[in-house]
Amino acid sequence: MKPAVVLLSGGLDSATVLAIARSEGYACHALSLDYGQRHTAELAAAARVAQALGAAAHRVMRLGLGDIGGSALTDDSIAVPEAPTEGIPVTYVPARNTVMLALALAWAEVLGARDIFIGVNAVDYSGYPDCRPEFIEAFERMANLATRAGVEGAALKIHAPLQYLSKADIIRRGVELGVDYGLTVSCYQADPAGRACGVCDACRLRRAGFIAAGVADPTPYR
Amino acid sequence: MKPAVVLLSGGLDSATVLAIARSEGYACHALSLDYGQRHTAELAAAARVAQALGAAAHRVMRLGLGDIGGSALTDDSIAVPEAPTEGIPVTYVPARNTVMLALALAWAEVLGARDIFIGVNAVDYSGYPDCRPEFIEAFERMANLATRAGVEGAALKIHAPLQYLSKADIIRRGVELGVDYGLTVSCYQADPAGRACGVCDACRLRRAGFIAAGVADPTPYR
Repeated sequence: MKPAVVLLSGGLDSATVLAIARSEGYACHALSLDYGQRHTAELAAAARVAQALGAAAHRVMRLGLGDIGGSALTDDSIAVPEAPTEGIPVTYVPARNTVMLALALAWAEVLGARDIFIGVNAVDYSGYPDCRPEFIEAFERMANLATRAGVEGAALKIHAPLQYLSKADIIRRGVELGVDYGLTVSCYQADPAGRACGVCDACRLRRAGFIAAGVADPTPYR
Repeated sequence: MKPAVVLLSGGLDSATVLAIARSEGYACHALSLDYGQRHTAELAAAARVAQALGAAAHRVMRLGLGDIGGSALTDDSIAVPEAPTEGIPVTYVPARNTVMLALALAWAEVLGARDIFIGVNAVDYSGYPDCRPEFIEAFERMANLATRAGVEGAALKIHAPLQYLSKADIIRRGVELGVDYGLTVSCYQADPAGRACGVCDACRLRRAGFIAAGVADPTPYR
């Protein structure tokens, strides 16, 4: 089996991506980032999901992104909004997908993997600039100039299989592939047991997705 | 003064870049990465250099890059070569400049900075793919698609002022700008006091640079 690096946050989207990568025959090396999140419930979820979906390996890399502040997700002095907001939300982590893809690229290079999977989505992208297709294309182009693989002529590919799917489509695809969404945590402020608040942006998008997909919502709410 | 993020390793090149960025009138926010180096002498050097050259701030961000292995600089089971080698050396840290620029981009976004400085060099580049000008251009293009600044039309610039300079030219430029190279550490295996081995790739390039520049080498050797 060809190795691939799969970015795995512990949420709904990246769990679906892991299931898709496995279904395409990759030996999946799941990478989670501990960047000073408010809670560790999503990292616990990532470990459960990696095991349930048969990842070949799972690593959690620590990164002191909280030191530079600037996001409600890494900085306790900024509150998570509980109602819809305009523009780029404060839950945006600065350059998050750039940082995560850079670290995935590093691991891919060590493994000799030429495939990286990420769960970005252009439909429900919530105003994050680094979820757009043109960003993913530009990252892939850069990655091919950055690494041994590129120098030696072996093309690196950034796979974003959720790119054009709605949240409902993502959920339907995951259910087909046997993803147990009860294991995942999407909430920006889940409690230590992984129970969701039900009111943050991530919870609202997720709940609406289950309703639109006609799938019972297995999320534990508090 | 406009803010800029300057990647600062504690070595000769990045010290020169910091001096150049200051001479261009930027308020320099120096960023060092603790990615599991064999020694902390270079981080101590970075702190000395940041202070000596009047950085507005200096942050050391921790990153568990050693977890993924693959480089003599982060993996103790791989020896640092003490004679010249062919091709990409084992001291290459996987995707290092991609990772460092991604973290600089994150801090730049928090600061509202539109300028990032890095000490890559195409002349003495030692076979590292991520030191080439086409890599820097591709990163800049990607960065402008990744961030709020790009979305809001404010261009981000990656400055690589050493790009086309020889090591001797870099040293002459730094001496003009008052850089004290005795504060810097380039050696891949410096001892805890920061004294250099004199035989690794980095030591050989550095020493040859001082000779070619006609500048007395202030490096403490052990």
